Amino acid sequence: MSWRRRRTTVLLFERVAIVGVGLIGGSLALAARAAGLIGHVTGVGRTEANLATAAARGIVDRTTRDPAAIGPVDLVVLAVPVRSMADIARALAPHLRPGTVVTDVASVKAPVVETMETLLPPDVSFVGAHPIAGTERAGAGAADAELFRGARCVLTPTARTDAHALARVEALWRGVGMTVERMSPVAHDRVLAWTSHLVHVIAYALAAVVDAADPNLLRYAGPSFRGATRVAASAPEAWVDILLANAPAVGAATDAFVAEVARLRQALASGDEATLGTLLRAGRAARRRVEES
Amino acid sequence: MSWRRRRTTVLLFERVAIVGVGLIGGSLALAARAAGLIGHVTGVGRTEANLATAAARGIVDRTTRDPAAIGPVDLVVLAVPVRSMADIARALAPHLRPGTVVTDVASVKAPVVETMETLLPPDVSFVGAHPIAGTERAGAGAADAELFRGARCVLTPTARTDAHALARVEALWRGVGMTVERMSPVAHDRVLAWTSHLVHVIAYALAAVVDAADPNLLRYAGPSFRGATRVAASAPEAWVDILLANAPAVGAATDAFVAEVARLRQALASGDEATLGTLLRAGRAARRRVEES
Repeated sequence: MSWRRRRTTVLLFERVAIVGVGLIGGSLALAARAAGLIGHVTGVGRTEANLATAAARGIVDRTTRDPAAIGPVDLVVLAVPVRSMADIARALAPHLRPGTVVTDVASVKAPVVETMETLLPPDVSFVGAHPIAGTERAGAGAADAELFRGARCVLTPTARTDAHALARVEALWRGVGMTVERMSPVAHDRVLAWTSHLVHVIAYALAAVVDAADPNLLRYAGPSFRGATRVAASAPEAWVDILLANAPAVGAATDAFVAEVARLRQALASGDEATLGTLLRAGRAARRRVEES
Repeated sequence: MSWRRRRTTVLLFERVAIVGVGLIGGSLALAARAAGLIGHVTGVGRTEANLATAAARGIVDRTTRDPAAIGPVDLVVLAVPVRSMADIARALAPHLRPGTVVTDVASVKAPVVETMETLLPPDVSFVGAHPIAGTERAGAGAADAELFRGARCVLTPTARTDAHALARVEALWRGVGMTVERMSPVAHDRVLAWTSHLVHVIAYALAAVVDAADPNLLRYAGPSFRGATRVAASAPEAWVDILLANAPAVGAATDAFVAEVARLRQALASGDEATLGTLLRAGRAARRRVEES
């Protein structure tokens, strides 16, 4: 059966609830609908204004502020801050039909996966997922059907993960254009500590310290400063949770980074041109491999 | 006289030499020609291939690899690495007519301005300039007539700077779309230490340390890591020079940044959610002011 034929006849998930219709949840709904992967979408959110935006943009078919009112669905996507996930899981649990697949998009996985596997009923299948995509923008207004294309999604199955549910969640993320791979929750959190969580620590610290030195300095922010601090525009509440949830790994990455900066600082203080050159060339070589990946 | 009429009749500089037809030098030539500010352009460079690109793209009218062969010009723009400036100034000096204006685009100003004021003949007018624009791309192929539009240019006059030359250089940068302001060379270097040089230290260190921890991590670089390390793709040779030329100010900014990261690290280690929240909110508030500036 051809893909074209299949997408008009068989949906991956007939009825879907997106809890948190923000940048990621909203973009997933838009992209999965555009790809013919999902049918009816219920959007669950805290604020009427954002839900109204989601409805007006055709991201969702129906909206509710009550997670208990999602009705019978085949898939629940939890796209809410880490802090809210346990409460939402408790509210949802009694209303999920056997066989429902629950997935999430959180940037930290070990504590989230453990919480979900504990709180959700045993006849519901949880699959941890983290689409590594996004911008510092938030809300349904920022949702973009092309957000995930070409980027990477990490699924974090455990011994308790249902193989069929895992395959369907994998098909969902592949269907919106992502490269999908599997990793343990702990391995995921270590990778993200280095490649994302540390970057947020740096961005918030850099923006804050320059402002503290002299607020007028910010007027001279060129493209390098703007690029390096872009993610400091992200919601502090969400990032307090992510950093604390992954504190040991983020701490280790931060210590290694500070030690590297100290080496560079020492070479600068002693006018050691050769060492400075070696350090900068190592940085450029690494950065070039990012472009190739 | 209307602007439209004026640009067809009076050029700001009739004959110009651009020494270093890279991203900045090439973009200035393109933008100033498009705005009708300059006439004939001689491009001076080290490599035939880049000069050929500059000529093919219409950035320059004539090319030479010898700074002594620029012929009679009204303006010389030095758009070369900091390290090369003294040698080029020595090579150019005997060939500059009285009244020639010499300017530059270096990211560090105090040592450059001092060198130029020492090496150039007294009847030549040097005006230090730093257009705060650019990307990590290099070469005439990356030149872009719109590179400077909406960005800021700092001019760094001293007691020795000729007022008329200063006004003409200011008109040139305004004419290509920049907001121009004046600052002492030392004040400029302090500002750039915080808003650009520190950012490069961070970007090189971040890319290098993640790669050193595990090269496979780079495969998971998402938009935050890419944004934060973008400038680590810049030429290490150029940045060794800039960092060493501004070492005391860069060192002070780096120390303050490391202290801020340490505060964040401490809050993370002790699970101090309140302090972590305060630090991240300060970062976001600062970052938002960048967007407004």
